[in-house]
Amino acid sequence: MRLALDMASKAKGQTDINPVVGCVVVKEGRIVGLGAHLRRGEGHAEVHALRMAGGEAEGATAYVTLEPCSHHGRTPPCCERLIEAKVARVVVACEDPNPQVAGRGIARLREAGIAVEVGLLGQESQLMNEMFNKFIVTRLPFVTMKSAMTLDGKLAAKTGDSRYVSGPQAREMVHTLRHRHMGIMVGVETALIDDPELTTRLSVPAIHPIRIVVDSRLRLPAESRMLQERSAPVIVLTVESADRDKRAALEAAGAEVIVCGSESRVDLNIAMRKLGEREIGSILLEGGGKLNGAMLELGLIDKVLLFIAPKVIGGQAAPGVFQFEGFEKMAHAILFRDVQVEQIGGDLFMSGYPEHAAGDRASGAGTDRHA
Amino acid sequence: MRLALDMASKAKGQTDINPVVGCVVVKEGRIVGLGAHLRRGEGHAEVHALRMAGGEAEGATAYVTLEPCSHHGRTPPCCERLIEAKVARVVVACEDPNPQVAGRGIARLREAGIAVEVGLLGQESQLMNEMFNKFIVTRLPFVTMKSAMTLDGKLAAKTGDSRYVSGPQAREMVHTLRHRHMGIMVGVETALIDDPELTTRLSVPAIHPIRIVVDSRLRLPAESRMLQERSAPVIVLTVESADRDKRAALEAAGAEVIVCGSESRVDLNIAMRKLGEREIGSILLEGGGKLNGAMLELGLIDKVLLFIAPKVIGGQAAPGVFQFEGFEKMAHAILFRDVQVEQIGGDLFMSGYPEHAAGDRASGAGTDRHA
Repeated sequence: MRLALDMASKAKGQTDINPVVGCVVVKEGRIVGLGAHLRRGEGHAEVHALRMAGGEAEGATAYVTLEPCSHHGRTPPCCERLIEAKVARVVVACEDPNPQVAGRGIARLREAGIAVEVGLLGQESQLMNEMFNKFIVTRLPFVTMKSAMTLDGKLAAKTGDSRYVSGPQAREMVHTLRHRHMGIMVGVETALIDDPELTTRLSVPAIHPIRIVVDSRLRLPAESRMLQERSAPVIVLTVESADRDKRAALEAAGAEVIVCGSESRVDLNIAMRKLGEREIGSILLEGGGKLNGAMLELGLIDKVLLFIAPKVIGGQAAPGVFQFEGFEKMAHAILFRDVQVEQIGGDLFMSGYPEHAAGDRASGAGTDRHA
Repeated sequence: MRLALDMASKAKGQTDINPVVGCVVVKEGRIVGLGAHLRRGEGHAEVHALRMAGGEAEGATAYVTLEPCSHHGRTPPCCERLIEAKVARVVVACEDPNPQVAGRGIARLREAGIAVEVGLLGQESQLMNEMFNKFIVTRLPFVTMKSAMTLDGKLAAKTGDSRYVSGPQAREMVHTLRHRHMGIMVGVETALIDDPELTTRLSVPAIHPIRIVVDSRLRLPAESRMLQERSAPVIVLTVESADRDKRAALEAAGAEVIVCGSESRVDLNIAMRKLGEREIGSILLEGGGKLNGAMLELGLIDKVLLFIAPKVIGGQAAPGVFQFEGFEKMAHAILFRDVQVEQIGGDLFMSGYPEHAAGDRASGAGTDRHA
């Protein structure tokens, strides 16, 4: 199962909205088949592994990191393939939360007389597909916020200078994160200041995420580098009242413009729903402090990855990592659970999951402070 | 040597401006003597260990965490005791930086024909006495800043509410830190808001640090709990122009008032010198953001201990952990070296040493922004 998880995790980022899955077929103490799901629409892990095993699959044990599917999707159900191959036993790391599966795959195997065990390294498998698991149930993208800040919580000096907050190792990791997310989201301020391409730059070829810009007043220039660089689509989120000429210019330059609400600012809840409808299952949020703050306050951030550089920049006017109205009581602060920390290069690297349970928070406004 | 270090480290905080030292005497594979320096003016580690060893010290090896002293202080030199006891070999973790010793102890032992080795676990021994090592060379207190902040670098909500930033385990550790420092320093704002006693509250009896309040305008009330609670002295740092009646009232209530400069704000450089003259060798800074920022900017903080609660409070007006003018370039930020991080309870606990080398920083002012 460890090997199956390893194979699966290497495919992170390349299976679109599909989960990553690994499968190892073992017979009489020998591995006879290996497989992983590598691309949406192509063979599932079990299919690859069973094909490799051939006749040896009969009477074998299949270790698979996710419940085999029971429904006809783009490929036929894996349950049936396992039954046909006459495997004796299937060990499953965790159930598939996909409402189309959700235990039916396991039930089908048992009906066919196959011994099924569930739970081996289950937590790891669940974590590996945390983005898929949210999307498949809610149809909303899993949002990972990534930021680099100083110890005093600043993204830049008071002058705006931010070269560099974190060290080279941290900056390199960002590109692996881009590879692993379907979309990358920024505020138009960031797009205007840095004119970034927002592509994945690794030493090996990698997948470029769809670029998403929150831009209520359509200030993104049609000549921006993001629109010149055609390796991935550009989506601009705006509001009903946005200027029609600007919209036409952006569309002519290749952007898709999506209207999210009729207020003066982009309604981020609507935005997430519309991005989900476009099957953007995961988003890396590389926002400035305002967009980070608005997304956090609305409960739209699922995971936070923070590079904390052990340095102090100072300055009341230096932009903070989360800018929003703020809470009146320390007890109402948004708490992160499952926090982990490690040192990467000279920086601290923290991950955690914001808790969105507290209903009685006394923040200023929860809906009207985004880019 | 490991045992000698362990014995010594347990005495941290109880030896006044003296270093903590441990000594183990070993003969023919058996420990024959153990000692540690426990209190200023009383026996050094070597004396205790040699007394325990008695006649068995002859021909033995003494492991000692710090170079044996060569000068007559409050006690006779330990070198002479080791020579008298006819030990064959002395293993020293590190040299004593005290200008009155600084290699002379080792030289004296060698002159007397004793084999001396230096450096075993030397770095650990040096670190154990980092506070002493600074004071004995510079006569300035070693300042450890301790603070608890949110992920976004705030000490409290915008309303001032700060109950609580960090968890109970972090708050308990603070009292061990107080035990280990000779002084504890706050700004008068903290004293006014919380009216704290600033004593060491542990489940066992502990040493209370000297309370030091930075109070340019002598706003500390003579009735404050700090002055009621007589377990340790109170020092109030102020300026020449401070009101004479207020000063008299504070002195009548038991405080020592020290004038630090003739500007409108306490000159923190003068303050550190005057506290050093009073043999306050170590200070735990539990300041608000302004005092932290001023001390950091002036290069007066030697070590920073930060409890980082994994929560976000938000609010531009929420007080930050280091308040000062700030730098214009990210490259000029004050960097911390030898950073370590661990998780304590639900919080991150970071330690590091601010680097004060950069001479070309472009911060607003370096001298005029302290409590």
